[in-house]
Amino acid sequence: MTSLSTYPFYQLDVFTDKGYLGNPLAVIVALDPALPIPNDEQMQKIANWTNLSETTFLLPPTDPSKADYKVRIYTPVEELPFAGHPTIGTCRTFLEHTQGGVQQAKGKKIVQECGVGLVNLLVAEDGSIAFTAPPLSKTGPVEEEKVLVACKAMGIAREDVIDTQWVINGPHWFALQLKDVTTVLNASRIPNQESKKIKFGVVGLYSPQERQSADAAFCEIRAFPHSVNVDEDPVTGSFNAGVAQWLIGKGVAPAHYVASQGQAMGRRGRVVVHRDDSDLTLEVSKRPIWIGGESVICVRGTIQI
Amino acid sequence: MTSLSTYPFYQLDVFTDKGYLGNPLAVIVALDPALPIPNDEQMQKIANWTNLSETTFLLPPTDPSKADYKVRIYTPVEELPFAGHPTIGTCRTFLEHTQGGVQQAKGKKIVQECGVGLVNLLVAEDGSIAFTAPPLSKTGPVEEEKVLVACKAMGIAREDVIDTQWVINGPHWFALQLKDVTTVLNASRIPNQESKKIKFGVVGLYSPQERQSADAAFCEIRAFPHSVNVDEDPVTGSFNAGVAQWLIGKGVAPAHYVASQGQAMGRRGRVVVHRDDSDLTLEVSKRPIWIGGESVICVRGTIQI
Repeated sequence: MTSLSTYPFYQLDVFTDKGYLGNPLAVIVALDPALPIPNDEQMQKIANWTNLSETTFLLPPTDPSKADYKVRIYTPVEELPFAGHPTIGTCRTFLEHTQGGVQQAKGKKIVQECGVGLVNLLVAEDGSIAFTAPPLSKTGPVEEEKVLVACKAMGIAREDVIDTQWVINGPHWFALQLKDVTTVLNASRIPNQESKKIKFGVVGLYSPQERQSADAAFCEIRAFPHSVNVDEDPVTGSFNAGVAQWLIGKGVAPAHYVASQGQAMGRRGRVVVHRDDSDLTLEVSKRPIWIGGESVICVRGTIQI
Repeated sequence: MTSLSTYPFYQLDVFTDKGYLGNPLAVIVALDPALPIPNDEQMQKIANWTNLSETTFLLPPTDPSKADYKVRIYTPVEELPFAGHPTIGTCRTFLEHTQGGVQQAKGKKIVQECGVGLVNLLVAEDGSIAFTAPPLSKTGPVEEEKVLVACKAMGIAREDVIDTQWVINGPHWFALQLKDVTTVLNASRIPNQESKKIKFGVVGLYSPQERQSADAAFCEIRAFPHSVNVDEDPVTGSFNAGVAQWLIGKGVAPAHYVASQGQAMGRRGRVVVHRDDSDLTLEVSKRPIWIGGESVICVRGTIQI
């Protein structure tokens, strides 16, 4: 029998300031040089077992002069080069585990090493953490055939889709803008044989009237990563990052807005989108877009691997 | 802002002696009288968030002279009156948390209070825990219409099903005996609109040759609780309990056998079935059938509610 090692374990709720209303993330801390770093097979097996949309492994950076930590991100069925809520939740865990928590880190810049390279993170005054949306490796309209598969999986009509866009920034997302928020909220999340091959999400804009209240969101988002065996993801940083670049780019969204996600699953996720316009010499399309959110540590303990 | 309380938290792997090859279960311990017992809404919200097939709350028994503890069992979408792997995992947690672990409890009888009443548990010499299969509230052949929905969801032909049976013992399971193990292992787990209304599983018998090896299983089981938004459950005590009563009852299975489940999901669950023939005055059909398995505690810590 192989002997087991004990690692620090956290399960966080990301994109919410209240536990159990955001997107859960399991983080296994393997920073201690006295412990073996779990191998690829172990990481995948554990991520399949936690059954969360993502599980991450917090590791020492390859080059400590360039990054604060390295993360490996797994869905139940595959490793991802980048993902949003795991990035925020892993950074939060790094701060908690090594630097005394998020309160001590206000205003701090953190650099995360992951599959797409280095990702910049910023700890805001309210304790929320934001990352810069990674560049899109694929944009442009979505093939009609794929749009129809997504419509069928959601039980909506093709006419309910008013625009389409590839927004690949690691995960192979495509986005559909639906005619209104009601259509977004009523979409079904039941996969079919065809939709199991794609990863897509939808966005609908709240009416100017609905956006009046202080707490109001600009749009409602839902994400269906059927290709990784997840019917619906509660709140999705990477998809929100792609959608933000698309909507702000085409002038539909303002440079600062809040997206709501997870309502259809009984959650109440809030994703804060912010384009940094401080460097006016930068072309508008080149200015960094920050994707941020609050997070709550719900479970703290150890895991045996 | 409401203040939070901190409860002991365990995440176990049930029906396996090696971590990450069984069925995960989250257990929240609310035995401490100084802590408020979470309300129904909180319990359901947390079970939705853990995203496991079941999450349980370990509570003080209503009458300590009759039961050792009380458990409430939640899937991501509903409370269950009874379920198998949560029963074994919660009992294991009870022993670990209050009695110094399973090693100290060998040979011990435990009584669990749950939605179906009192359930007897036994701690075996090898540290595994078994419960008596609860009485079936519904048996008999399954309506043809439901069989066809299940066949469609699994992508198998109606002719591949050689027998059908309702096996309701809390959860509304029905069972299909398939012609062989290959058909069981190749069945698809993709739900459809219709299968989202049912909860079903399949069993196939290994050939006498395949049962030769010491470690061999008698049958291969898979369970698809689509009605609770779970595509496939890795290893399922309640379904195995119903199947055991059915197969032993119709003389297809011996009084003692091991069922294998989870292979199609990369797991390696083992469910030990044993009919207690010690009281020969009892009619064969009335003799208790024990469903047992080993379990491993993978995560230990606390949860904030």
